[in-house]
Amino acid sequence: MGKKISFSCPMPEFDFDTITLAHGSGGLLTNKLLDQGVFSLFSNEYLDRQHDGAVFYNEGKLAFSTDSFVVSPIFFPGGNIGDLSMNGTMNDLAMCGAVPKFISLGLIIEEGLSVRELWKILESIKGISDAFDVQVVTGDTKVVERGKGDKIFINTSGIGVVKKQANIGIERIKEGDRILVSGNIATHGMTIMSVRKGLEFQTALESDTQYIGDTALELIDNFGSDIKFLRDPTRGGLATVLNEIAGKLELSIEIEEALLPILHESKSACELLGLDPIYVANEGLFVAVVSPEISGEALDFLKQNEKCEGAAFIGSVTSAYPKKVVVKSAIGGRRIASMLPGEQLPRIC
Amino acid sequence: MGKKISFSCPMPEFDFDTITLAHGSGGLLTNKLLDQGVFSLFSNEYLDRQHDGAVFYNEGKLAFSTDSFVVSPIFFPGGNIGDLSMNGTMNDLAMCGAVPKFISLGLIIEEGLSVRELWKILESIKGISDAFDVQVVTGDTKVVERGKGDKIFINTSGIGVVKKQANIGIERIKEGDRILVSGNIATHGMTIMSVRKGLEFQTALESDTQYIGDTALELIDNFGSDIKFLRDPTRGGLATVLNEIAGKLELSIEIEEALLPILHESKSACELLGLDPIYVANEGLFVAVVSPEISGEALDFLKQNEKCEGAAFIGSVTSAYPKKVVVKSAIGGRRIASMLPGEQLPRIC
Repeated sequence: MGKKISFSCPMPEFDFDTITLAHGSGGLLTNKLLDQGVFSLFSNEYLDRQHDGAVFYNEGKLAFSTDSFVVSPIFFPGGNIGDLSMNGTMNDLAMCGAVPKFISLGLIIEEGLSVRELWKILESIKGISDAFDVQVVTGDTKVVERGKGDKIFINTSGIGVVKKQANIGIERIKEGDRILVSGNIATHGMTIMSVRKGLEFQTALESDTQYIGDTALELIDNFGSDIKFLRDPTRGGLATVLNEIAGKLELSIEIEEALLPILHESKSACELLGLDPIYVANEGLFVAVVSPEISGEALDFLKQNEKCEGAAFIGSVTSAYPKKVVVKSAIGGRRIASMLPGEQLPRIC
Repeated sequence: MGKKISFSCPMPEFDFDTITLAHGSGGLLTNKLLDQGVFSLFSNEYLDRQHDGAVFYNEGKLAFSTDSFVVSPIFFPGGNIGDLSMNGTMNDLAMCGAVPKFISLGLIIEEGLSVRELWKILESIKGISDAFDVQVVTGDTKVVERGKGDKIFINTSGIGVVKKQANIGIERIKEGDRILVSGNIATHGMTIMSVRKGLEFQTALESDTQYIGDTALELIDNFGSDIKFLRDPTRGGLATVLNEIAGKLELSIEIEEALLPILHESKSACELLGLDPIYVANEGLFVAVVSPEISGEALDFLKQNEKCEGAAFIGSVTSAYPKKVVVKSAIGGRRIASMLPGEQLPRIC
């Protein structure tokens, strides 16, 4: 895991301690919250215009992505809903081969949220924005009555500039391609479970929420078209992403259980709860499907990055079981890993 | 009011009647809902790739905007939360002088929402998407537990192509400029109030939710730089938007109460509830600040459009009361219309 991004900015002296419905009215209190808080914190040439939207110039290919975040609890070991909402959408853009540039921030706040908690979340967002030169250029704040939301839900949408060298496309995947993951699996999901009400257990785990897209984009810089497909396996875990890939091809994906990188703590927790780690959510992780010719070199490249110390080769694309994901167990048996049929843990992100 | 857009598409035979937490798991049920429902309904070259984001080419200026919609009730006379969430973001883009092109759709669904209601909402979104050639290109679906949301919240973010002739900027507003509105004020707000639990009253009112941006963009086509500023006065109403404008200038905005276009039904309802219509939310309406030279012609142009039959000149930019909005009453008195200090009605959009 890379080092955590930390940013703090003195909270303005608001003359209110909690968010009320009037902060969502569009009137004076909305303006106070925005002018004294959000706009001053995120100040940039686009946002400062305070129009209904941001206007920018571009020539070339852009990527556009959206994600809503409803994680519970909103603060957890290793991060909070603010970190998730930036990292998540920025990672999605990078998975399209794009450098994230602009973010929109849509807040749905439950009446009663403390302004201090809101500020902490906004600070996290600002920290990531600064660290990776991604600007929050437009936004929206709504407030719902107590009991009609859950503290805060955040939507981020993002625009990124697609790298010229990027040639990402599921249709480019061929038999023989290799599957790499950028680090340990199941860390985020098991962290959230460890602090979820009614399920708490003691662990040293911290969420892997981070912007990992920069590393994915460096892979593209170095290996161009040999990086055929990228995806971050969040909700539903590794197995779901691999199923989405296999389901769209006439090929199969075969992975080896023994090769899956996983922290000891996550593995123990999965065993304790009877969960299969390949279905557990990740946040700061990506899966890459790459040409066999460069797979060794690509893996070495990843492992040099402190964010990807756990990176590993986990399997290959084959033609043996079309449209299926097959897991080879440590003792040699094979099983089909289908889509997660039900719900493992709601509101993991 | 223009005619309502109506679109219907047979609902697929889902093997579930209500949305459950598992539909937000990222697993099999999420995929069923998306593959059989959302993806087939909105099918287009961008969405069909089903990647983490949509990739498109552009050369020129783009506008980017976001809005979350939490309106209650989700179905109301004249529309539903789906109409609002398309029209609202598309209008925001048009207010930047941009033709809306791409929309992202983020759904936060409360467990227990009926699939039939969800489908109706999606049909409305699709209808508007088709009518104005705006594509839903990326999306996200989350489900929260019963009592942690309220049926459905929708975030739409949008990208539009800025018109070459557009020269919208608050700094371009000068003394003597004229203020036009595109139609009757307070219609949406009074409609929602008439069906809000605990507040119901009988009225023939229907929400004015509509994409009005096309008309705003035609103004730009016809009058170019003489259209100096555009804004849709949604939450907080006309007075809030005018205050936002005046607050950023060393000028004042003076409007005349007698000139404000308002339906008889809205006026009566406002009197009944003791509300000032200039603070009541609108949806399919815009305010334009225009050069005095073309204001008459611009108004005539608007009035030719059936969506803008109620269009009117309502006041001017003056230097008399810097940073203030002043309302001249029918009997000649003047009062300052400041920002709405509290909350008129939560969750109006």
